[in-house]
Amino acid sequence: MSTSPRVEEILSWYDTDDVATRSCLRRLLEHGRTAHSGKLVVLPVDQGFEHGPARSFAVNRAGYDPRYHARLAIDAGCSAHAAPLGAIQRIAKDFAEELPLILKCNSSDSLYTGPDPLPALTASVDDAVRLGCVAVGFTIYPGSAGRNVMYEQLRRLVAQARDAGLPVVVWSYPRGSGISKEGQTAVDVVAYAAHLACQLGAHIVKVKPPTAHLEMPAAAAALRESGTRLDTLADRVRHVVESAFDGHRIVIFSGGPAKDTLAVLEENRQTALGGGFGTIMGRNAFQRPRTDALRLLAEVMDIHRESRAHAVSGAR
Amino acid sequence: MSTSPRVEEILSWYDTDDVATRSCLRRLLEHGRTAHSGKLVVLPVDQGFEHGPARSFAVNRAGYDPRYHARLAIDAGCSAHAAPLGAIQRIAKDFAEELPLILKCNSSDSLYTGPDPLPALTASVDDAVRLGCVAVGFTIYPGSAGRNVMYEQLRRLVAQARDAGLPVVVWSYPRGSGISKEGQTAVDVVAYAAHLACQLGAHIVKVKPPTAHLEMPAAAAALRESGTRLDTLADRVRHVVESAFDGHRIVIFSGGPAKDTLAVLEENRQTALGGGFGTIMGRNAFQRPRTDALRLLAEVMDIHRESRAHAVSGAR
Amino acid sequence: MSTSPRVEEILSWYDTDDVATRSCLRRLLEHGRTAHSGKLVVLPVDQGFEHGPARSFAVNRAGYDPRYHARLAIDAGCSAHAAPLGAIQRIAKDFAEELPLILKCNSSDSLYTGPDPLPALTASVDDAVRLGCVAVGFTIYPGSAGRNVMYEQLRRLVAQARDAGLPVVVWSYPRGSGISKEGQTAVDVVAYAAHLACQLGAHIVKVKPPTAHLEMPAAAAALRESGTRLDTLADRVRHVVESAFDGHRIVIFSGGPAKDTLAVLEENRQTALGGGFGTIMGRNAFQRPRTDALRLLAEVMDIHRESRAHAVSGAR
Amino acid sequence: MSTSPRVEEILSWYDTDDVATRSCLRRLLEHGRTAHSGKLVVLPVDQGFEHGPARSFAVNRAGYDPRYHARLAIDAGCSAHAAPLGAIQRIAKDFAEELPLILKCNSSDSLYTGPDPLPALTASVDDAVRLGCVAVGFTIYPGSAGRNVMYEQLRRLVAQARDAGLPVVVWSYPRGSGISKEGQTAVDVVAYAAHLACQLGAHIVKVKPPTAHLEMPAAAAALRESGTRLDTLADRVRHVVESAFDGHRIVIFSGGPAKDTLAVLEENRQTALGGGFGTIMGRNAFQRPRTDALRLLAEVMDIHRESRAHAVSGAR
Amino acid sequence: MSTSPRVEEILSWYDTDDVATRSCLRRLLEHGRTAHSGKLVVLPVDQGFEHGPARSFAVNRAGYDPRYHARLAIDAGCSAHAAPLGAIQRIAKDFAEELPLILKCNSSDSLYTGPDPLPALTASVDDAVRLGCVAVGFTIYPGSAGRNVMYEQLRRLVAQARDAGLPVVVWSYPRGSGISKEGQTAVDVVAYAAHLACQLGAHIVKVKPPTAHLEMPAAAAALRESGTRLDTLADRVRHVVESAFDGHRIVIFSGGPAKDTLAVLEENRQTALGGGFGTIMGRNAFQRPRTDALRLLAEVMDIHRESRAHAVSGAR
Repeated sequence: MSTSPRVEEILSWYDTDDVATRSCLRRLLEHGRTAHSGKLVVLPVDQGFEHGPARSFAVNRAGYDPRYHARLAIDAGCSAHAAPLGAIQRIAKDFAEELPLILKCNSSDSLYTGPDPLPALTASVDDAVRLGCVAVGFTIYPGSAGRNVMYEQLRRLVAQARDAGLPVVVWSYPRGSGISKEGQTAVDVVAYAAHLACQLGAHIVKVKPPTAHLEMPAAAAALRESGTRLDTLADRVRHVVESAFDGHRIVIFSGGPAKDTLAVLEENRQTALGGGFGTIMGRNAFQRPRTDALRLLAEVMDIHRESRAHAVSGAR
Repeated sequence: MSTSPRVEEILSWYDTDDVATRSCLRRLLEHGRTAHSGKLVVLPVDQGFEHGPARSFAVNRAGYDPRYHARLAIDAGCSAHAAPLGAIQRIAKDFAEELPLILKCNSSDSLYTGPDPLPALTASVDDAVRLGCVAVGFTIYPGSAGRNVMYEQLRRLVAQARDAGLPVVVWSYPRGSGISKEGQTAVDVVAYAAHLACQLGAHIVKVKPPTAHLEMPAAAAALRESGTRLDTLADRVRHVVESAFDGHRIVIFSGGPAKDTLAVLEENRQTALGGGFGTIMGRNAFQRPRTDALRLLAEVMDIHRESRAHAVSGAR
Repeated sequence: MSTSPRVEEILSWYDTDDVATRSCLRRLLEHGRTAHSGKLVVLPVDQGFEHGPARSFAVNRAGYDPRYHARLAIDAGCSAHAAPLGAIQRIAKDFAEELPLILKCNSSDSLYTGPDPLPALTASVDDAVRLGCVAVGFTIYPGSAGRNVMYEQLRRLVAQARDAGLPVVVWSYPRGSGISKEGQTAVDVVAYAAHLACQLGAHIVKVKPPTAHLEMPAAAAALRESGTRLDTLADRVRHVVESAFDGHRIVIFSGGPAKDTLAVLEENRQTALGGGFGTIMGRNAFQRPRTDALRLLAEVMDIHRESRAHAVSGAR
Repeated sequence: MSTSPRVEEILSWYDTDDVATRSCLRRLLEHGRTAHSGKLVVLPVDQGFEHGPARSFAVNRAGYDPRYHARLAIDAGCSAHAAPLGAIQRIAKDFAEELPLILKCNSSDSLYTGPDPLPALTASVDDAVRLGCVAVGFTIYPGSAGRNVMYEQLRRLVAQARDAGLPVVVWSYPRGSGISKEGQTAVDVVAYAAHLACQLGAHIVKVKPPTAHLEMPAAAAALRESGTRLDTLADRVRHVVESAFDGHRIVIFSGGPAKDTLAVLEENRQTALGGGFGTIMGRNAFQRPRTDALRLLAEVMDIHRESRAHAVSGAR
Repeated sequence: MSTSPRVEEILSWYDTDDVATRSCLRRLLEHGRTAHSGKLVVLPVDQGFEHGPARSFAVNRAGYDPRYHARLAIDAGCSAHAAPLGAIQRIAKDFAEELPLILKCNSSDSLYTGPDPLPALTASVDDAVRLGCVAVGFTIYPGSAGRNVMYEQLRRLVAQARDAGLPVVVWSYPRGSGISKEGQTAVDVVAYAAHLACQLGAHIVKVKPPTAHLEMPAAAAALRESGTRLDTLADRVRHVVESAFDGHRIVIFSGGPAKDTLAVLEENRQTALGGGFGTIMGRNAFQRPRTDALRLLAEVMDIHRESRAHAVSGAR
């Protein structure tokens, strides 16, 4: 398998991980249309579990079938496809060799919700190994009263994944009674969330695109005094990436709810400009008709792979 | 053992399961009056635990004896018989070879109830193996504050059952403070419940016949905009089955409280028409006199096995 | 060891238990004055733990010594003696060979009480094996908010006891915020409690003599419509025994607080007439002077062993 | 090692314990100034943990050093010295061979307190074995809402100690929202607490000297009707000892807060007269200047070893 | 490796620890600029986790990179560097041989806070071993309602660390609803916190510099009556050190929030004068420009290593 200097550089940041884990990271970084660029574009489909099948798939009914998404990810040249246990079980035999799979190991549904989210553990590292996955995924909600339960579950998952030679992708989504609704995407909060995921052992961190809002007065003061620029999304992405061990961890940004194509492309341009490592884009892909989705994913991948502004700090 | 193309097709959806688990699924699909049709009609008797013996058995006192139900299931040609540990222990030696048994592994009683149900674990995969059962059964209550405890218990049961080569039947019954009373059978909620069970690793999902009520505004909007038809029970069953991996998981519908024969038959006709995989019918069977029960079960089985409308999506 | 057709019949109901467990059941059924009759009269002494030593033993101070009770049980010809860990440890070396011992594995004290009882686990199957006991005992309180914790503890105890070849005796005492004070002995509730214990894997069930009170409207309606007779204690005992797998589990009735001799004898006559399998009588025995206790126990045993009315359904 | 008939008699009460456990009990009973008498005088120093170092040691600053207490216990001829993990680790290498050590396995501090105490587990049987201790110690608080957690922790400790061949000393101190402040030392409550510890498997029970207060109406009535004498401390000690398996378990009495020498001596005389097995005296020893402490301990030991009134029932 | 009489003396206090654990302690005591002096100056960087990256690193942006701190600790001659899992994983391969690393095993973030702190477990002894660390670190919050959970987690960590041959450094920070804000640094509370950590098995205890405030009336009275001097910081440090087994455990003092250089130096002079074993100084080091930090650390180290007033009691 050919590789690239940038991929080698990125892998060098994970030098306490063993060969098996780094091989899986390498496979993600060398797969699909963004191969060799050090960027990742992942197709996640856990919205059926999180929001229900109707909200997720009724608009494009082919999506009721888990196999549709695996095929879409392959045809679009995605770096990987992430999904919960049941869907991965449905697709693994036919697709795991051709497409890097990420097993999502915890999930929440929307039939009961409270102020402090705490997902259920729904899959294990053993499942990931058995099903030929290249990584496991896990969501934490910093700001929730249940955060420490999640951190401890993540700690165990990280240890088990290490034993199995699998990297861990952490969805770090601030949410809960500790922070305001607006604070969930505040740049200081998102940067903190990225830092926490890194400290907890994440190999790849997924956060939301940060807004200019500042939630925590002490952080706001420190950022102001230090002259940290936070005006554009690119600036804010840069701050988030810097907060992830000065750019030495892979940080990707999620796409959020479906929106128009221009908005998606602009968001990805800013992310790439700020040194983000790519995107994880679900509803904006699978809720579009297949040909539209393929075209949009191709454009997004090209934005990232052609970006010359590598992560600000990672490139030092 | 002879088999049929439809059974082979159904088994192909479970291609990440091992031979032992698929053999048990095959045994269910090739047993009794609905053998070869890809349909299941199961006799469940956990009402003694759930509602108490008087409410369950006083009307037909032969039912106090667990052996009565095993004999009824055999004579009617049911696909399987499901019951809690004690009853299965009472009948396994004499009936397990002749009748596929499903060990119900959690149960709730009615002497203490609260707004958010969370059943007790009352049996294990080890018990099922020891007693010659072909599957284990488990109830989840999406919508309950205790849902995540159940999901995690189910995750462990699924893993243990896999190790033992047994499929898992999930009773997915929305209930609890997260949803309204009417919402428990709302079609969007039932479809969501079926999807959750599939994502959690269920091989067979049991839900209630869905009503036309819509509980969740966002799901209602998505269904309306997509033009999903929900007018008849058959339409709604079709939506539920579609939500179960586009019809690639076995979804059966429960009968609910005892009602008149015509209503039972019509409900099953609609279920079959919508692509449902059969029924799990307890009180409507064992609370009738034996001859009536045998006649009703035969008619229900014939409705299902003669149905040509296979699961909408499964037949694609 | 000689045996009897009735004992063989009873043992045939436990045909999924292994030889070791059935041997222990047989030892109980073939020991003491009621040997061969299929009836059991057990002396339980856990009142020191449950109510405190003064309330239990001050009236007959010999009872402060655990050895007194073991000697009393032997001299009276009891089927077995049940007690908590400490007492069994005090007596096992000298008495376990001569007297079947039942180790009580959970207990509650009265220094702290709340509306929803949940006893502490105070002994294990390992202790029972080490101390030469023939069975383990466990209390559940259906109707308590903590019921499911108890059911799950019982499930584990049942599995461990099976591995050790010991039967499980379940004290099934409805109590807690789910039911009224009067409901604790209501016939519908007691029958439900007996059924639950059987479903949870009990070999022997101990319940309280049921009153004519009916607690649950739906059960009351079902019993009324079915014409179930509940007028006399014998009628009610018959209903409770029927609810225990149609009389195919051993159900014995506790004596409750100390009362006069005639009342004790009449209660046992009714129990025997209704098909009960005997009694477990503590305070009415050990709080009487030794000679009185011996005489009363002998009369009670004779009532049971001479009863021709075997369990209504068991005799079918 | 020479022994005495009384020690042999006491050991005979523990005939279901194995040789290793009984050897440790024997070592306690044959050590120090009370050797051969069947009495124990133990020096406990967990007050630094429980009340803080200033309240415990400022008055006699030598006590800040754990080695001071070990030396004091040796020079005074104590039967044993009890302390938490850290202190035992500090002294074990130099003192464990010369002085029987009891590792206190749970403790509470005073920086946070609530109405229902529940200590932290702070050491294990493995620690005791590793550090050459002859017994483990454990506190239970009957009357606390957390009592059952403690009972279950004790059950596990007792099982682990048995496997390791170590006896268990239980501090049974009624306390919590279930009883009044005055009730903590009420004679009916203390007797109940002693009985509970015995039922839970304690080899040695430590309680507080009981007052004449009666907390529980039913116990008060039973004691009154039975004519149990409770006037003097000796009477009350006799009732407590009787409640501990009729005097067949070792029950010792704690000294409580520091008080004057005459009061200490009188309390011990009464304890000895009532059949108590000795005392466990901390603050009254180590908070006195060393020479005073040595003199007082010697006098207390002489009271106990010269007592001819062995435990009322134990001597039968 | 050369050593010193003082280091040998200190190691003699840990005589129940095995060779591996004492070798790690020795490595800490013989490393860096304070080698041979019996003093420790540690650089901790867990503020990114605890307070967020902006508050911690924006002022000196080099600190976003975990490698910056490792290099700073080496160049300054620190005894060790402490950090959470993620950061240690980032630096271990390049720095663990040159710099003693302490893996912080629990942490709290600031996105959700409550009155009673209880950190998440975020790393394990296995991680420490794998990453070549010489010790593990753990925070307890005496005074928190969650204190006992932390004590029990610490107990398990201590046992696992012993098995792995690693010493345990305990951050003992009183905090929570049991004490006032001012009480968190009250001298009686800090002394109590140090004592608790020692009793729980800590090898090295880290506390905050104590103020003259007294929180607990009974402790205040005992200190007053005993004439304990608490006027200067040195006096108070002496009391704290005395409370740690009379100075036979290593107690170091944290630096707290960033402050001016003179204040830092004076605080360390007082600490050294009172017999403290050094300091653990984070923000006052890494938030200064690198050259300033190197100069300040050198001055602090010289204060400690040149201190002739060894721990008051330890030197006896």
